[in-house]
Amino acid sequence: MPTTAAAGPGLDPDDNRRALELDRAGVFHSWSAQAELSPMVLAGGSGCRVWDYAGTEYLDFSSQLVNVNIGYQHPRVVAAIQEQAAQLVTVSPATANLARGEAAKRILEVAGEGFSRVFFTNGGADANENAIRMARLSTGRDTVLSQYRSYHGGTGAAIVATGDWRRIPNRYARGHRHFFGPFAYRSEFWSDGEEQECERALHHLERTIQAEGAGTIAAILIETIPGTAGIMPPPAGYLPGVREIADRYGIVLILDEVMAGFGRTGDWFAFHRYGVTPDLVTFAKGVNSGYVPAGGVLISPRIAERFDHDVYPGGLTYSGHPLAMAAIVATIDAMRDEGIVDNAARVGAEVIGPALHRLAEDHPSVGDVRGCGVFWAIELVADGDGAEPLDAATMAALKAELLGRGLLPFVTANRIHVVPPCVVTAQEAAEGIAIIDAALGALRL
Amino acid sequence: MPTTAAAGPGLDPDDNRRALELDRAGVFHSWSAQAELSPMVLAGGSGCRVWDYAGTEYLDFSSQLVNVNIGYQHPRVVAAIQEQAAQLVTVSPATANLARGEAAKRILEVAGEGFSRVFFTNGGADANENAIRMARLSTGRDTVLSQYRSYHGGTGAAIVATGDWRRIPNRYARGHRHFFGPFAYRSEFWSDGEEQECERALHHLERTIQAEGAGTIAAILIETIPGTAGIMPPPAGYLPGVREIADRYGIVLILDEVMAGFGRTGDWFAFHRYGVTPDLVTFAKGVNSGYVPAGGVLISPRIAERFDHDVYPGGLTYSGHPLAMAAIVATIDAMRDEGIVDNAARVGAEVIGPALHRLAEDHPSVGDVRGCGVFWAIELVADGDGAEPLDAATMAALKAELLGRGLLPFVTANRIHVVPPCVVTAQEAAEGIAIIDAALGALRL
Repeated sequence: MPTTAAAGPGLDPDDNRRALELDRAGVFHSWSAQAELSPMVLAGGSGCRVWDYAGTEYLDFSSQLVNVNIGYQHPRVVAAIQEQAAQLVTVSPATANLARGEAAKRILEVAGEGFSRVFFTNGGADANENAIRMARLSTGRDTVLSQYRSYHGGTGAAIVATGDWRRIPNRYARGHRHFFGPFAYRSEFWSDGEEQECERALHHLERTIQAEGAGTIAAILIETIPGTAGIMPPPAGYLPGVREIADRYGIVLILDEVMAGFGRTGDWFAFHRYGVTPDLVTFAKGVNSGYVPAGGVLISPRIAERFDHDVYPGGLTYSGHPLAMAAIVATIDAMRDEGIVDNAARVGAEVIGPALHRLAEDHPSVGDVRGCGVFWAIELVADGDGAEPLDAATMAALKAELLGRGLLPFVTANRIHVVPPCVVTAQEAAEGIAIIDAALGALRL
Repeated sequence: MPTTAAAGPGLDPDDNRRALELDRAGVFHSWSAQAELSPMVLAGGSGCRVWDYAGTEYLDFSSQLVNVNIGYQHPRVVAAIQEQAAQLVTVSPATANLARGEAAKRILEVAGEGFSRVFFTNGGADANENAIRMARLSTGRDTVLSQYRSYHGGTGAAIVATGDWRRIPNRYARGHRHFFGPFAYRSEFWSDGEEQECERALHHLERTIQAEGAGTIAAILIETIPGTAGIMPPPAGYLPGVREIADRYGIVLILDEVMAGFGRTGDWFAFHRYGVTPDLVTFAKGVNSGYVPAGGVLISPRIAERFDHDVYPGGLTYSGHPLAMAAIVATIDAMRDEGIVDNAARVGAEVIGPALHRLAEDHPSVGDVRGCGVFWAIELVADGDGAEPLDAATMAALKAELLGRGLLPFVTANRIHVVPPCVVTAQEAAEGIAIIDAALGALRL
C-alpha cells in the first residue's frame, strides 16, 4: 500500500483538499468529461517517487505522460532552471542566446550523423506541425502518410495526422492519409510472424503510395516505436524498408520520437536501434523531461538548406525559450555524466523484460509483453489465446488496485504501459513489477 | 546611442561571439531565411532595459514579441519560478495541483463575469486550436470566420484561421473563411470615418455569414484589437455589433487576446473596453509575460457544461504545467499589488498618446498614430496624405538608426509598434519616443 510519511517540509496535508477544490472550481481538463473527474493530487517527487500533500507516496511507473525520463526533481536540472531564471527568463526567438545555442549543440551531438540544425517548439504537436511544413515546402507535395495506430499531437494538422480515435472528432484538414504499420500480435496482414509481418507491412505501404500517387506524397510520418497506441517495436527490417521506399519515391521520412526519444528505449533515439537515418526527427518530453515545456525538430542538411535563402514560414513566440533551453542543457549533461541512457537499457534488459515475461507465464490474462529499455507494454486479454481485450471495468479495477498498493501506473485501453523514469533502479523495477504481479493475483487475472 | 556599461556579474563579453557562433552552427530560426541572419545577442534584462554580454544596453520598446508585460526579471515572478522548481517542476495535466488551481482562480477573477473554467495550453496557437475545437463541437458546425488582417498562430488549424500572408504557404485545412474588419485609416468599405466604417464592417460581416450559410458557421474568431497586423482598435460599436450578430445566428464568439490581454491595453482584457462578453477568450504572452511558455482558453459556462458528461477530445502534455502556473500566479499578484495595469493606462493616455500625436505633426512620414495603453502603432508613409507605405529599405535604415540610438524597437512592414512593457515609466516612455523623433529627423522622414 502507499507509504504515508509525514508531509515534507512546506507541505500542509490540508492542501490536498484545497488543491482538489480549486481544480474542480476552475480547471478544464483535457481528454475528459469534466463533471466526472476526481483528479489525483500531487505535491512533490524525487527520483522515481511522487507524493501528495499528506505525504502519501507512490512508486512511479508512468513518468507522468512518459516524459519524466530523468526522474523527479533532478538537482542539476532544477538548479539550471533556477540559475537561468535569475539571469534571463525569456527572450524572443529572433535573438541569439547562449542557452539556445548550447542546447542545439548537445541535441545534434546525441543525435549523431545526418542532422545540421534544430528548430525549437513548445512541445511535440508543434514539432510535428513544423516537420510536416518543412516536408511539404521542400517537396512541393501535399499529402502526408501516417499510421492508423499513432498519435502525433492535438493541433489542426497534427491531429489529423494522428491515427487513433482522437482524430475522428478533429478531422478538419485535408491531405492526410493513413496506413497500417506492422504489429505481429494483432496483424492486419494475416502474417505468420515477425518476418512475414514486416514484408507484408512494407508491401502495404508501397501499394498505398502507388494508389495515392507517389508524386503527391510529401512525407511518411511514423513514430519509430508507436507509443500511446501500444508500444509496438517494429520488426527489425521495417524501418530500413520504409527508408528505402521513401528514397525511391522522393518522400521525406519523418520519425516522431516525442515519446521514444532521449533514453526511453535505452538508446538516445529509438531510430539508432534500427540503423536508419530519417530526414527529420521530432522530439519533446524526454529532451528536458518536461521540466519546462519544449519540443523541436532535428533537420537534415538537405532540408535545412532549402530555407537558406527562402523564408521558412513558421514560428512561435516561445521557440527556443531560455528556461526550456537551460533545462535541456542540464538534462543532457546529467544523462551523459550519470549514464542514464545505459541504465535504462540495462534495467530493461536485465530486470523489466525478464520479469514481465515471467508475469506472462504466471497470469493467463497477460496476452503479450513487448518493449525495450524503460518502454514496455503488457497487453491484458480475457482469454489465454490473446484475442479478446480485457474489458474497461476490469481495467479500472486493476488500476485502482495498483494505486492502492502504492504504484502510480500508466493504464490505457487494455494495457499497462511499464514506463518508469530512465533512472529507475533494478530494485525499484522489481518492486513495481511485484506490485503488478500481486494486483493481478488479487483480481485473479 | 546604446549605453555600454561594464558587463554585469557573471557576464563575459566574449560570450557575444560564442552565442552567435553556437546559434549560427545549430539553430534553425522561425520566419527567416537561415543563411541571411545575424541575430542580436541578449544576455539579461531588468524592467524595461535589456543588455548583451558586453553590457551594451537598450531601452525596450518591443516587449520581445509583445509578451514581457511585467518587464524583465520581475523579482517576484523569478522567485516564484525558482520556488516551484524546487518543489515540483512538472506533473501531468490529469492530476490536480495547487499552482494550477490558483492560476485558474486568478485568471477567472481578472476576467470578470461570464467565465467559469480555464483550459491551459503551451501558447497562443494551441489556445486558438482548442477554442476552435470547443466552438465546433458545441455548435456541431464546421466553418470558422476570421479576419484577413489577423494572426492566430502557426499550427494547422490556427494558421489557416490566420489572415495575413503567413497562411498562404500553410493552407492545408478546410472550413476557414475570412472577412474584412473595420480599419478607417485604410478602409475596405469606402467609408467617410469611424462611424460609417463600423456600420459597413458589420454589414459586410453579416452578408458574409448569410452568403456562407449561417447554419454552417461555428465561430467568429477575432483579435479584440488586431495586433501583429497593425494594432487597429475597432470603432466603439463594432464588437457589440459582432456580439449581436453572433447571438442572432447562434455563432460562438471567440476573442483572441493573446497579444492584447493582461494589461497591454490598460485594461486586464481589451474586451473590457468595449462592453462585450465573448463566449471564449484565448490568451498567452502577458498571462505570465512569457516567463514560462503558457497559454489558455477562458470558457463560458454554456460551453464548459457541454463537456460535463461528454469527453472533451483535446489535450497536451504540458497543459497546466506547474512552473508556468506558478509564474501566472506571481505575475497576476504582482500586477494587482503594483497597479501595473493602471500604469499602462496612465502612461499610454498621458505620455505615449500625446507624444506620438506630436510626432505625427512634426514628421510628414507619420501617416497615422493609433492605440491605447502600451499598445500603439505609428504608420509610416511616403507622402503626407498617407496612402503609400514607406519602402522596406527605408524601414530597415530606420530600424538600424533606432538600435544605434539605444532603442530596441518593434518594426514590422511600414510600422513601428510602440509596445514597451506595462511597467514602463513616464520618463522611459518619453525617452523612447524622443529617440524615435531623433531617428526620424536624422533620416529626414
